[in-house]
Amino acid sequence: MIFLNVNGNLEPLEIAKRARAAGLKMSNSSVETRNGIILAIAEELNRSRRSVIDANDKDLAEAAKEGLASPSMKRLKLDDSKLNEMIRGLNHIAGLGDPINKTLLSVEMDQGLELYKVTCPIGVVAAIFESRPDALIQISGLCLKSANAVILKGGAEAKRTNLELAELERRVSGKFDFPIDAIQLIESREDVEKLLKLDEFVDLLLPRGSSKLVNYVRENSHIPVLGHAEGICHEYVDASADLNMAVEICYDAKVQHPAVCNAMNTLLVHESVADSFLPKLSTRFAKSVELRADERARKWIPEAKFVTEMDWSTEYLSLVLAIRIVNTPSEAIDHINRYGTHHTDGIITDDSEVARRFLREVNSAVVLHNASTRFSDGYRFGFGAEVGISTGKVHARGPVGLDGLVTHKYIVAGHGHLVASYVGKNPRPFTHTNLNKTWNI
Amino acid sequence: MIFLNVNGNLEPLEIAKRARAAGLKMSNSSVETRNGIILAIAEELNRSRRSVIDANDKDLAEAAKEGLASPSMKRLKLDDSKLNEMIRGLNHIAGLGDPINKTLLSVEMDQGLELYKVTCPIGVVAAIFESRPDALIQISGLCLKSANAVILKGGAEAKRTNLELAELERRVSGKFDFPIDAIQLIESREDVEKLLKLDEFVDLLLPRGSSKLVNYVRENSHIPVLGHAEGICHEYVDASADLNMAVEICYDAKVQHPAVCNAMNTLLVHESVADSFLPKLSTRFAKSVELRADERARKWIPEAKFVTEMDWSTEYLSLVLAIRIVNTPSEAIDHINRYGTHHTDGIITDDSEVARRFLREVNSAVVLHNASTRFSDGYRFGFGAEVGISTGKVHARGPVGLDGLVTHKYIVAGHGHLVASYVGKNPRPFTHTNLNKTWNI
Repeated sequence: MIFLNVNGNLEPLEIAKRARAAGLKMSNSSVETRNGIILAIAEELNRSRRSVIDANDKDLAEAAKEGLASPSMKRLKLDDSKLNEMIRGLNHIAGLGDPINKTLLSVEMDQGLELYKVTCPIGVVAAIFESRPDALIQISGLCLKSANAVILKGGAEAKRTNLELAELERRVSGKFDFPIDAIQLIESREDVEKLLKLDEFVDLLLPRGSSKLVNYVRENSHIPVLGHAEGICHEYVDASADLNMAVEICYDAKVQHPAVCNAMNTLLVHESVADSFLPKLSTRFAKSVELRADERARKWIPEAKFVTEMDWSTEYLSLVLAIRIVNTPSEAIDHINRYGTHHTDGIITDDSEVARRFLREVNSAVVLHNASTRFSDGYRFGFGAEVGISTGKVHARGPVGLDGLVTHKYIVAGHGHLVASYVGKNPRPFTHTNLNKTWNI
Repeated sequence: MIFLNVNGNLEPLEIAKRARAAGLKMSNSSVETRNGIILAIAEELNRSRRSVIDANDKDLAEAAKEGLASPSMKRLKLDDSKLNEMIRGLNHIAGLGDPINKTLLSVEMDQGLELYKVTCPIGVVAAIFESRPDALIQISGLCLKSANAVILKGGAEAKRTNLELAELERRVSGKFDFPIDAIQLIESREDVEKLLKLDEFVDLLLPRGSSKLVNYVRENSHIPVLGHAEGICHEYVDASADLNMAVEICYDAKVQHPAVCNAMNTLLVHESVADSFLPKLSTRFAKSVELRADERARKWIPEAKFVTEMDWSTEYLSLVLAIRIVNTPSEAIDHINRYGTHHTDGIITDDSEVARRFLREVNSAVVLHNASTRFSDGYRFGFGAEVGISTGKVHARGPVGLDGLVTHKYIVAGHGHLVASYVGKNPRPFTHTNLNKTWNI
């Protein structure tokens, strides 16, 4: 069984070379084959519940012995309901349209000379994630669909579960006319270190986990990275805000799930509404949130602690909220651009001119008007699944689904056309007319 | 005059901070203002021909004293005809559509909750280019149009010319309600070194010049880089090629302008057509091209030198051509993916099945069917102007025009919508229906 040890003890260089070769073959695969594999993995996952949960139990037992914290234990644990979700996720990905071979542009350059811009896979993607073994299924499903070869590195504590899942995926894809190395697994931190240097064979890195992990990846590689380190998200309550709406949005953004990257970290309040808004907010929070406020805000919420400069750039991930009074929308925009992490920021106002300025000038991947920061999510945006949320400004930004896993190539189709005809004394002109045509030879 | 010394002797950190602030303001500028500035720069350039050419003359005199090679002298020199081209280029950029504030996606998430994906500027772009001072005008024109702040570093030999041009641009934009630091210039290599480390303030690097320059930039920064180091481009003459067409395409790809990145470097010939094709080619080249061929090919072109392994990965930029016989299209594809630089590669064949495979599996930014590699160019593609050709696979790939200088943000517009309504026991469903609407508040 070549599948059993996934890749035996291959060196990262060999793994990356195999991924490159697999990726090149995959770029010519049909969407029917790719969907067939994804659906077959879902079926096999359903049939293999016992062995997956067994492997997970062993990981859980070892993690318990080593004293893994309870939230991490919860994320590590797979049960039937989580497996159902994973299976549903794969079926959903199979149902999405083919992200590759889409014509983005078609131009007649001259008679018989056509230019197409067509989506194609990026090539080789390396995903480095922590704890949650369900991430392995989601990420590899998206990579299969987009015809990218993927190299997976999961958390050490989920070692047996990840191995079981990756073996299952390779066993299934091996039954199709498809490269077995479309999915590969690496296990050690040393292998990650080596992988980060393989610019020639790895096209994109997807770190998903703590800001420590993401920063480590960014600082140790010249390969493009998609992801975000921290989410320091803001809501700004403007002078023209509907204050009852503002209270409810702030409650949702802070309390509904405080441990995630798109929860509100800092609240900015226009000075003209502070006296009516802050006591309302304090009542709504009913002491469940620790407030840290600047001196002016403490006039209306004396129970708040004093906020410090460090608070503005600290990601809480818990029921703590920093509060600042601002005199103008400009001051709010400046604060967000200075202290935020360019992830997700919202404004609550009924003044559309102020909203427009805020939405344009705030330098973040997702900006919201009269809605909770918690909406910033690939599933809620309707992308089906996401490989992460990107705060980078090139390629994909914000929640990243299949669109972020493809690139494009330009295809020129001629009939012996020569550049020499278009230069010199009597150059032929280019026509450059839109063809509105799909590339299809 | 605050314009005169461009930025006096500011440190790169201060320059980058000013660029960031300028970029944030520019993101809210109207396309009318941006076009107005571009047209005013074109007019001012026309009025200031004398002083620009004077500055250029001084650069030329010094370069001559220092023994600059003749092709570089030619690229450095500005005359009235080059100035006319620069002015025409600016007018053309002003005439293109606004690349920002374009709605790429509009989705109703639920009643009253709308999601928009809208193009916006990247922010701060640093362009590092060699010799040609006309590149300064082209790059800054594209950056102005796309509302990006730009930091320019030109070649040392064009120092006076670049200073004259950058001052002119700042003088003009200072007359508008527009940030003066939209365009800044740095001059020393040490400043470039510092700039490459300023990830927080610089969003994109555009190196344009020798492969040494591009590799230096890539290796010394974690900021995303758009560009290409070398162009090792191939034409593959298939078993089903029209051989007369093939000879003319190869002549164009090799001889029409050999010193550029999209000229043919290596010719791959299917063994079944070698005996009829190679003598034809040799006659057409009439000894003007130095041929270096593998043993099998030398049977038909005995005048060729022996090719070595090193030739496959050497960018000639001159009238030299490496030739290899392959047994199958797969062998040609493998050769190109292995030795090429993923820039531009073509196939000459009348077999559409072989063409399809080649165009899909060759891992290059531009792939061509029955056309010369020399077509790979932003102007010929109809993009108006280009900041360069990218061999990177994320963000922009191939010739990069205005589209490569924008990113997007997601805008969520609600009416007090809370995530809490969409989770838990009786969650509201998302509708996720296409709105086909332009973002416009």
